[in-house]
Amino acid sequence: MLGSTHGTLTTDFRARVEACGESPRTAVHSSAAPSADDAAALDVSGRPLHADVPDLDRFFRPESVAVIGASDTEGRPNTGITRQLIAWAGRVGARIHPVHPTRPTVFGLTCHASVADLPEQVDLAVLLVADPLPVIEQLAETKVKFAVAFASGFAETGETGAAAQERLGAAVRGSGLRLLGPNTNLNAFEEFREDLDGPAIALITQSGHQGRPVYTLQELGIRLSHWAPTGNEADLETSDFISYFAEQPEVGAIACYVEGLKDGRSFLLAADRAARNGVPVVAVKVGRTETGARMAASHTGKLTGADTVVDAAMRQFGVIRVDGLDELQDTAALLARARKPKADGVVVYSISGGTGAHFSDLATEAGLTLPTLSQAKQDELHQWIPGYLNVANPVDNGGHPVGDWRGRKIIDAILADPSVGVLICPITGPFPPMSDRLAQDLVDAAEQSDKLVCVIWGSPVGTEDAYRTTLLGSSRVATFRTFGNCITAVRAYLGHHRFTSGYRSPFEDAPRTPSPSYRKAQALMRPSQQLSEHAAKQLLRAYGIRVPREQLVTSAAAAVRAAGLVGYPVVMKASGPQLGHKTELGLVKIGLTSASQIRDAYRELTDIARYENVPLDGILVCQMVERGVEMVVGVTQDDLFGPTVTVGLGGVLVEVLHDAAVRVPPFGEDQARAMLRELRGHALLEGVRGAPPADVDALVEVVLRIQRMALELGDELSELDINPLMVLPRGQGAVALDALAICR
Amino acid sequence: MLGSTHGTLTTDFRARVEACGESPRTAVHSSAAPSADDAAALDVSGRPLHADVPDLDRFFRPESVAVIGASDTEGRPNTGITRQLIAWAGRVGARIHPVHPTRPTVFGLTCHASVADLPEQVDLAVLLVADPLPVIEQLAETKVKFAVAFASGFAETGETGAAAQERLGAAVRGSGLRLLGPNTNLNAFEEFREDLDGPAIALITQSGHQGRPVYTLQELGIRLSHWAPTGNEADLETSDFISYFAEQPEVGAIACYVEGLKDGRSFLLAADRAARNGVPVVAVKVGRTETGARMAASHTGKLTGADTVVDAAMRQFGVIRVDGLDELQDTAALLARARKPKADGVVVYSISGGTGAHFSDLATEAGLTLPTLSQAKQDELHQWIPGYLNVANPVDNGGHPVGDWRGRKIIDAILADPSVGVLICPITGPFPPMSDRLAQDLVDAAEQSDKLVCVIWGSPVGTEDAYRTTLLGSSRVATFRTFGNCITAVRAYLGHHRFTSGYRSPFEDAPRTPSPSYRKAQALMRPSQQLSEHAAKQLLRAYGIRVPREQLVTSAAAAVRAAGLVGYPVVMKASGPQLGHKTELGLVKIGLTSASQIRDAYRELTDIARYENVPLDGILVCQMVERGVEMVVGVTQDDLFGPTVTVGLGGVLVEVLHDAAVRVPPFGEDQARAMLRELRGHALLEGVRGAPPADVDALVEVVLRIQRMALELGDELSELDINPLMVLPRGQGAVALDALAICR
Repeated sequence: MLGSTHGTLTTDFRARVEACGESPRTAVHSSAAPSADDAAALDVSGRPLHADVPDLDRFFRPESVAVIGASDTEGRPNTGITRQLIAWAGRVGARIHPVHPTRPTVFGLTCHASVADLPEQVDLAVLLVADPLPVIEQLAETKVKFAVAFASGFAETGETGAAAQERLGAAVRGSGLRLLGPNTNLNAFEEFREDLDGPAIALITQSGHQGRPVYTLQELGIRLSHWAPTGNEADLETSDFISYFAEQPEVGAIACYVEGLKDGRSFLLAADRAARNGVPVVAVKVGRTETGARMAASHTGKLTGADTVVDAAMRQFGVIRVDGLDELQDTAALLARARKPKADGVVVYSISGGTGAHFSDLATEAGLTLPTLSQAKQDELHQWIPGYLNVANPVDNGGHPVGDWRGRKIIDAILADPSVGVLICPITGPFPPMSDRLAQDLVDAAEQSDKLVCVIWGSPVGTEDAYRTTLLGSSRVATFRTFGNCITAVRAYLGHHRFTSGYRSPFEDAPRTPSPSYRKAQALMRPSQQLSEHAAKQLLRAYGIRVPREQLVTSAAAAVRAAGLVGYPVVMKASGPQLGHKTELGLVKIGLTSASQIRDAYRELTDIARYENVPLDGILVCQMVERGVEMVVGVTQDDLFGPTVTVGLGGVLVEVLHDAAVRVPPFGEDQARAMLRELRGHALLEGVRGAPPADVDALVEVVLRIQRMALELGDELSELDINPLMVLPRGQGAVALDALAICR
Repeated sequence: MLGSTHGTLTTDFRARVEACGESPRTAVHSSAAPSADDAAALDVSGRPLHADVPDLDRFFRPESVAVIGASDTEGRPNTGITRQLIAWAGRVGARIHPVHPTRPTVFGLTCHASVADLPEQVDLAVLLVADPLPVIEQLAETKVKFAVAFASGFAETGETGAAAQERLGAAVRGSGLRLLGPNTNLNAFEEFREDLDGPAIALITQSGHQGRPVYTLQELGIRLSHWAPTGNEADLETSDFISYFAEQPEVGAIACYVEGLKDGRSFLLAADRAARNGVPVVAVKVGRTETGARMAASHTGKLTGADTVVDAAMRQFGVIRVDGLDELQDTAALLARARKPKADGVVVYSISGGTGAHFSDLATEAGLTLPTLSQAKQDELHQWIPGYLNVANPVDNGGHPVGDWRGRKIIDAILADPSVGVLICPITGPFPPMSDRLAQDLVDAAEQSDKLVCVIWGSPVGTEDAYRTTLLGSSRVATFRTFGNCITAVRAYLGHHRFTSGYRSPFEDAPRTPSPSYRKAQALMRPSQQLSEHAAKQLLRAYGIRVPREQLVTSAAAAVRAAGLVGYPVVMKASGPQLGHKTELGLVKIGLTSASQIRDAYRELTDIARYENVPLDGILVCQMVERGVEMVVGVTQDDLFGPTVTVGLGGVLVEVLHDAAVRVPPFGEDQARAMLRELRGHALLEGVRGAPPADVDALVEVVLRIQRMALELGDELSELDINPLMVLPRGQGAVALDALAICR
C-alpha cells in the first residue's frame, strides 16, 4: 500500500484509491504500464507527477475493426452507422468484421456470431448494442486494444445510469482494453479532407453537435486531423486525448469543448504536456454560472466558485479558454497554422482612418501592443501614402494606393519592420476595385513573409470571391469575420508563445516527500473539528508563518500579566474551537493600553461568550499590529482539483468585492506573484496615499508556504483561512493576525 | 444677451456663445427657427431643453439637385460621382442640374455656369469642388435648403484645416442652408433595396467604410431606409440625424458609427427624443482607450475618463453601445424588426443537451432570464420529447423529434407559454435531415406567433440553403451566426423595451431658474481659486448638505474653546486655500479627547504647515464622525457634456479600485439610485459584517443636491469633491467631512 510509505497520502484520496483496489496512480490513469520508473512518481499529496499518454495510434488508424451489432436491414439505425463505419474503414485501410448473432453477412461482408468468433485479433471494437457491458467484459479478456460504446442511458440519466457506467469503467480498469464512451457517436469516424496540408486542428468534444462548427472549418480550408467525441468518459477522458494529440507531429492546435472534467490532476498533467511541447490548447468550458455549490462556508471558500478554480487552472497551464464556438474555431485555426511570432508588435493597416481608429481602440483595450512606427518607416510609407494621412500605426492609406502597385509596397514595408510581428488589415467594406486587389496583395505578401498577416472580412455576406477564393485559399493569411474574434485570436497567439517560451513545468519542482513542518502540523490536526484560533496559528507557525506574540489566558489577572509580556497596546479575543465571526459577535477588543482596560475587556468578552453560549478555551492576549495591508490567504478543497490556494484583499473588502485570486498546486513563485497582479486592489500593496510599499516578498513566501501545507496536509485539511494576514512595510515581513482551520 | 437674464449662464459657455454672436441655443443648434416658445427653453445652466429637429425630408428626397463641379470626362474622379448622382436622382425622382463654369453639357444634361444660373430653386446642392467655401457662401444667400461638401482637408488635417472648417460652419450658421460635411462621400446617395418592407435601419456614420457592413445587410434581407455619412460635421451632426430618424415612421432602429460627438447636450436631447418615441439607437463609439486626457487633477476627475462619461450618458438615455460592427449589425437588425416583447423570459431550445447547456450558461452570465417552465408545460413537452431529457429550460429534444411532425408541436408549445418572450434555438451543426426541417418549423411558427424567435446558425460556411433561403427569407425570425451576438442583441432588445416603457424624460423636470441656494453659493465663489476646506463646506451648506460642527481658529486657546463647543472627541485639520492632500502631509489629527491634546495638535499642525510652506487661513476644529460608510461625491467638468456628477466608494478605495459611477445632468432620482447599484462595493451600503445599513436615501439626496449645484454654478465650478461623505446608519443622514472646490 503506497499510503504507508507516503505519510501524506490523505484519508479521502486514500479511501477513493482503496475502493478501487488500485495504487493511486493506476486508479486515476488506468492505462498501459508506465514506460519509466519516474512515470510512476507521486507528489507529496499522493497525486501523479506525470501524465499517462495512452497510445491511441491504433484507435485512430486501426488495422482491423469489429462492428458489434452490425446491420444492413434498411430502416434500422444501426444500418446507417454500419454503412458509415465500412466507408471509414475503407478510407483508413482497416479490415472490418461485422458481428451479429444471427446474420450470415452484412453488406456482403462475412458476419461473425460473437467476439469470440472473430477471425483475427482486432484493434478496435465498435459497440452498437444497447447494453455494452457484457461485450466489454468479454473484450477485456482478449487483446483488443480499444472499444467504443455508442449506447446512451448512463450517467447522463441519473444515479442508476451512473452505477451502470461505473461498472463499464470497472470492467476495463486494469485490463489492456481502453474504452471510448458510452454515449458517444460517429464523430471519431468522420471523413477528413485529405487535400489540406500543414498543421491541423485536433478536436475533442463531450457533445457531438458542439464540435460540428470546428469540423465544418474544413470547408473553409482549415485542416482537421482528429475528432475525439469523448461522451461520458467512463474510461478514456479529454485529458488522455490532449496528452496524445500534444505528441502528434501533424497537430498544430487542440480544440476542446468541455462540459465537465473527470479529474483535475490528469487535466493539469495533460495541459502541462501540451505546454512543454508548445502545442496550444483552446477550450470552451461550460460552467461560467455554476457558482459556489460545492464550496465551503468560510470566506475564502465563498470567493472561489469551482469555475474560478477551473479558470485559474487553465491559465496556470496555458490553456486558452474562450466562450463561443466561433471563438474556438477562429482561435484554434490561427494557433494551429501561425508560426512563432518574430515580435509582439501589431500594426493595423486599413484603407480608412475610421476603420484603423476603431480597430486600434478595441485592440489596445484588449491589451495588444501597437508600437508607433519609427520616423524612418513612416517616411518610407509616405513615399506611397499622402503626407496628411497618419501612418504611425494604425497605418491609414486613404484608399487609393491599394488600387495600384503601391499597395504591395506598403504591406511589404510594414512587414519588414522589426517591431512588427503581426499585420492586421480590417476590410470592413468589400468594394471590389479596392478590396479584391488588397486581398490579393495581402496573400502574396504573406506567402513571402515570416510574419503573421490577419485580415478581417467585414461583409456579413461572405460569398465574395476575394473572401472565398483569395483569402480562404491562402493558408498563410488568417481570415476573420469580426474585429472581436481577430483580437481574441491574436491575443491568444501572442500570449501562447510568450507563455510556452518561458514555460517551466511546476511538476518538476513539486515536493515528493513531506517537509519537517509536516510532523509538527499533523500533531495539531483534530479530525472533523474546527481548530481554535490559537491552534490554527500553531499550524501556521509549524510552516514558518509568523503570528503575533500572544498568550492564551483563563483569568483577568493572567491577561494583565500576558499583556506585560507581549507589550502594550494589545488586542484581546475570545478563543474557542467553534468560533467563527468574532468581530460581529463583539468578541474582539483592540487597542487596549492599560491593566484596567484589560480587566474590563476580559470581563466583557467572557460575558458575551456566556450570553451567546459560545464555549471558549480561553482569551487570547495578542500583540497589536496596526500598520500594514490586510490580506486574506487560504486553502479550500475543490472537488476536481483537491486543495487550492487563494489570496485576496482582506478585511471587509474580501466579502464585498470578492477581489481574490486562486491557484491549483503545484505552482511556482511566478504564479504566486501573478496572483497578486490579478487583484484589482493590487496597488494597495505598492503603497497609496503616502503609505509605504508592502512587503510583497514576504506575502509571496506566505503563499508558497501555504501551498506546501496544502499539499502536505492534503485532504486532512478541509479549509484554512488567514484573515487578515497583515503585510507590513517592505523588509518587515507579514503576520497572520487571525486564522481559521477546519480539519477533515 | 441671454446671459444677463440667466445669472447662471457661466463664463465658459457664455464666451463660446459670444464668439459666435448668437444666443446660446442657436449657437449650438444653428437650424431653422424653433416652432414653439417652449422649444427655445433653456435649463438653469443655459443649455437647451429641446432638440431642434431639422426637417431633412428634402435632403433625402429632393425635388431638384445641383451638382457643382459635375464632369463627364472619363478618368476624372468627379465623373464617376456625377454618374452615380444622376442615377440616384433618377431613382428618387429628382431633377438634376450640373454646374460647371465651362462645360455646355454633362452626360447630355444642360450644364450651368454657376449656382446663380440655375434654372430653378434647388433643394440640394452637391459640391464636388476642392474649395467649397465660396460656393457655400453663395448658396447661403439663396433659398437652397441643403448642401453636401465632399472635399477633404479640413479639421482632420490639423489646425489650419479646422479654421477653414469653422469658416464653412460660420457661412451657414443663421442662414436657411444646412450643410452635410465636409469630408463626406456618396453614401447618402446609395441605392437601397425597394423590395424589402417592414421597419428599417437608418444608418449614421462618421466614416463611410465603417457603415458598409450595415449597408450590406440588405443582401441578407434587412431593410435600410437612410444612410447619413456626416463626415466632419461642420454643421449637421449625428444628433440631428438621430432626432430626424426618430420621427420617421419607417425607421425601426438607428445604427450609428461615432468617432466623436460635436456637442454633448445635443446628443442627449436627440437620444431623449428617440427614447420618448421608443426608437432604439445602437451605436459604436470609438474611444474606449482615450483615458483621462481632459480630466482634472482631483480624485473624482481621475475616476471618470471622458469615455466613461460618454458611456454613462448613453446608458442614461437608453443608447445601446456595442463594440463591433458585427454587433452593430445584429443588434440594430433585431431591434428594428422585433415587436414589443410579451414577457422577459427566454427559452433555449436545442437538438443537443450540450448546445443547450452551453448557450444557457452564456445567456445567464449575460443577465438574461431563463425561467423554469411549469410542470404542466414540461409534461406537455414530454408528450413529444423522451422522458429522460431535460425540458425545464433549456429544452433538449434529443434530436429525433425535429425530423417529424413533433418538431413544430414543441416549438408552438414553448411559444404559447406565458412566461416566454423569446425562443432561442442554437443550431450549431447544420445536418440537413434535421436542421432544414427545424429551420422551416421555426420560420413557420414565428410567422404565426407574436413572440420573438431567434436562431443561431453555427456553421462557419453560411451558404447552406436552410440559412440563406429559409431563415434569412423570413423577417420574423432573427438569425445570428454566433452565440455571443445573439445574446448581446436579445439583451439589448429586452433592455430597450424595459427602458422605454418606464422612460420619463429628465428634461421635463430640469430646473430652469436658480434656486435660493444659488445666491448664497455665488457669494462664496472665487474665480480661478481653490477654496479652503472651510469655504468649500459653506458651499455645501448653501445647498443644504450637512457638514460637521466646526470652527476655524487661529490660536491654540481658541482651538480648546472650539472643541468645547463642537464636543469631544474632535478632529483638527489645517485649512488653507491651496491645500490638497492633507492626510499625506500629516495635516489632519483625529480622535483628540483633551485640551492638552488639542494644544499639542495645534502646535504640530502649524509647525508642519510652516515647514511645508503651506499658507493657512487657520485650523479647523471639527466634530468627529466615525460610524458610517465613506463615499466620494463630486463634480467634474467634461469637455463635451459640461458638469458631471460622480459617486464612488470613499477613502483609499476610490484611488485604488476606481469604483465610481458618473452621470450627466439632468437626471432624476432613479438614475441617482442606479449609480449606487453600479458600484462594485454597493453591498457596503447595505451593511456588512454586522454594520448597520447606511442611509442610502440621504446619500441619494446629496447626489441630487450636488447635481443642482453643478447645474446652477455651471462652468463657474471647475471641480468639487466631497471626500469623504460619511453616510451614517439609516435614518441618520450623511455628513460631508471634507470638501475640495476649485472655481473657474
